[in-house]
Amino acid sequence: MGMMKKLLYSLLIILLVASAGFTAEKKIRWKLAMTWGPTLHPLSDTAEHMAEIVKELSDGNFVINIDASNVHKAPFGIFDMVKLGQYEMGHTASYYYKGKNIAFLPLTTMPFGMTAPEQYAWFYYGGGLELMQEAYTKHGMLAFPGGNTGNQMGGWFTKEINSLDDLKGLKMRIPGFAGQIMSKLGVTVTNIPPGELYTALERGTVDAVEWTGPGMDINMGFHKIAKYYYTGWHEPGSEVEFLINEKEYNKLPEKYKKILKIAMKTAAYDMYIQSYEMNAEAWQQMKEKYPDIKVKVFPEEVLKEMKTAYDNLVASYEKESPMFKKIMESKRAYLDKVRDWTHISDYLYLKSTSESNLN
Amino acid sequence: MGMMKKLLYSLLIILLVASAGFTAEKKIRWKLAMTWGPTLHPLSDTAEHMAEIVKELSDGNFVINIDASNVHKAPFGIFDMVKLGQYEMGHTASYYYKGKNIAFLPLTTMPFGMTAPEQYAWFYYGGGLELMQEAYTKHGMLAFPGGNTGNQMGGWFTKEINSLDDLKGLKMRIPGFAGQIMSKLGVTVTNIPPGELYTALERGTVDAVEWTGPGMDINMGFHKIAKYYYTGWHEPGSEVEFLINEKEYNKLPEKYKKILKIAMKTAAYDMYIQSYEMNAEAWQQMKEKYPDIKVKVFPEEVLKEMKTAYDNLVASYEKESPMFKKIMESKRAYLDKVRDWTHISDYLYLKSTSESNLN
Repeated sequence: MGMMKKLLYSLLIILLVASAGFTAEKKIRWKLAMTWGPTLHPLSDTAEHMAEIVKELSDGNFVINIDASNVHKAPFGIFDMVKLGQYEMGHTASYYYKGKNIAFLPLTTMPFGMTAPEQYAWFYYGGGLELMQEAYTKHGMLAFPGGNTGNQMGGWFTKEINSLDDLKGLKMRIPGFAGQIMSKLGVTVTNIPPGELYTALERGTVDAVEWTGPGMDINMGFHKIAKYYYTGWHEPGSEVEFLINEKEYNKLPEKYKKILKIAMKTAAYDMYIQSYEMNAEAWQQMKEKYPDIKVKVFPEEVLKEMKTAYDNLVASYEKESPMFKKIMESKRAYLDKVRDWTHISDYLYLKSTSESNLN
Repeated sequence: MGMMKKLLYSLLIILLVASAGFTAEKKIRWKLAMTWGPTLHPLSDTAEHMAEIVKELSDGNFVINIDASNVHKAPFGIFDMVKLGQYEMGHTASYYYKGKNIAFLPLTTMPFGMTAPEQYAWFYYGGGLELMQEAYTKHGMLAFPGGNTGNQMGGWFTKEINSLDDLKGLKMRIPGFAGQIMSKLGVTVTNIPPGELYTALERGTVDAVEWTGPGMDINMGFHKIAKYYYTGWHEPGSEVEFLINEKEYNKLPEKYKKILKIAMKTAAYDMYIQSYEMNAEAWQQMKEKYPDIKVKVFPEEVLKEMKTAYDNLVASYEKESPMFKKIMESKRAYLDKVRDWTHISDYLYLKSTSESNLN
């Protein structure tokens, strides 16, 4: 081959390689494990929504496949699976991992704490997101807000609660931190699998069941049996989370990191709004079909006792975990500030218009 | 040149053209006009935030340049400029254009209407976004939620309002629809330019001034003069908007349409949360420095009269504009449903915890 031909062949090869490099964006396929089953709306929709945005904005080159709990069989193992890199990503709730370190508890919600918009302001403008990274980076993970359920209800009760005495010996299904508080008030906290709860409530094996809010409660059917629906105190704005294996994240092209962050943020906000709609719709349906349901607020002496039990537990955890203390100090300071605003804005607006029957 | 050389040259040219076509995504430069000045936070941040996301996710190929009102000099001309294609995009508020058709009024907020999360649920899950398109498509535009101010305050008053009589002849700066309602209650509604308002309030040329909420009010300084800060009734969740010229939108590659939609949605939600933080922070500062400020709720007889005036105006507009009627019917039905949920969730949570001093 002559010099000219050789040169031209070389140029051709360079161009082919270069054009291939430019045109094909990096193909990446991730796996996400979620705590929930494949149709537990709105939770299951949120990871799907996030993955859909990522796929669209990457021209189909960054694909996140989702495994629901029926596939991986470890609903509360998301933390470990993402930490170990078995999944690049997870969709779960931080408070499920309080056994590893109590500092993971307040990253979801806290009794007597912030509502969803208050807590989003803390995450994005009050230092919350940075504290969340501080807690997770020790485990080689990044964590981001993953959607809000809205204010959760206090539970379905077959008996009215008029005093602290009415709680003594009451059998209730209420898991987690709220369950610990209820047990301090003399409630017998039971742990019955979700599939058996309806029958347990119907037969009186339990007297009360805490679940979520109308949007998710309606499929459980508790409103067909229990007449008293108590308002919330324990989960005023539960934010679930996206977990990401840090090493895998660092391997991503910069652009995919940006796409992923925007997708998580939008899907999370959207879940809060989807929850709002689902709760409103389900509550309307329940009320129409079961007009005897009575919405009740726990008596003041009960709420005060819950708060005392809560304060004592928080004080003991603060001694146990400096990171828990750091997060709680930040949350308390932010709540002090933000609640005063909520009070003079939405709260007094809702109070004055509802008391005067103006809507 | 021999056959071989000719063939190779041709191949080279084809490859060069093809690789250029693949690698360079379409370069697009848009202009956005906004109603606000360049530093009117959080409003001005929102268009910037949106444009930044668009630029990042398009690798810098889709650039939206922003003109603030000091550049285009037509703060309330955004509708016309976007309609005529002088700007591809705008950031403004729908209720500024109620003079064109009263149907544009309820796409921002309505007195005695929905709070921000309630209204987002209406937009995204209750048919609101579709009605918004129906209103704007006649004008060759698309419209999307563009950020929420949160619940706005009723205004700064130098005198306490204890009865309907106290409003008769009161001189107040309160523009737009709320001003129309106030004038029905005997208030003398004045229109003083923002730059002169502080002096007007100080000298008693006006007795009261409505602005926004603490976050934006603090820079105006009204809290240094007026002692009574009345809670809101007239703008419970003002959603500003992004307007897009439909022809220009249709020219966009599909991917840029997706990027633009995600960017607008995220920036809008973020403005609601940024407003929450700004209001909370400013209110804390005001209270600390001016502890004499008294937060007041209008007396029930005043609120009821406002509501009657509001109902009458709405009834007359419904006769005037079928599109206004259609939007109001949708909003009323959604409010009926969603407020019941707000009432048993956030409202009773805030009520029971604040009455028992649990936070």
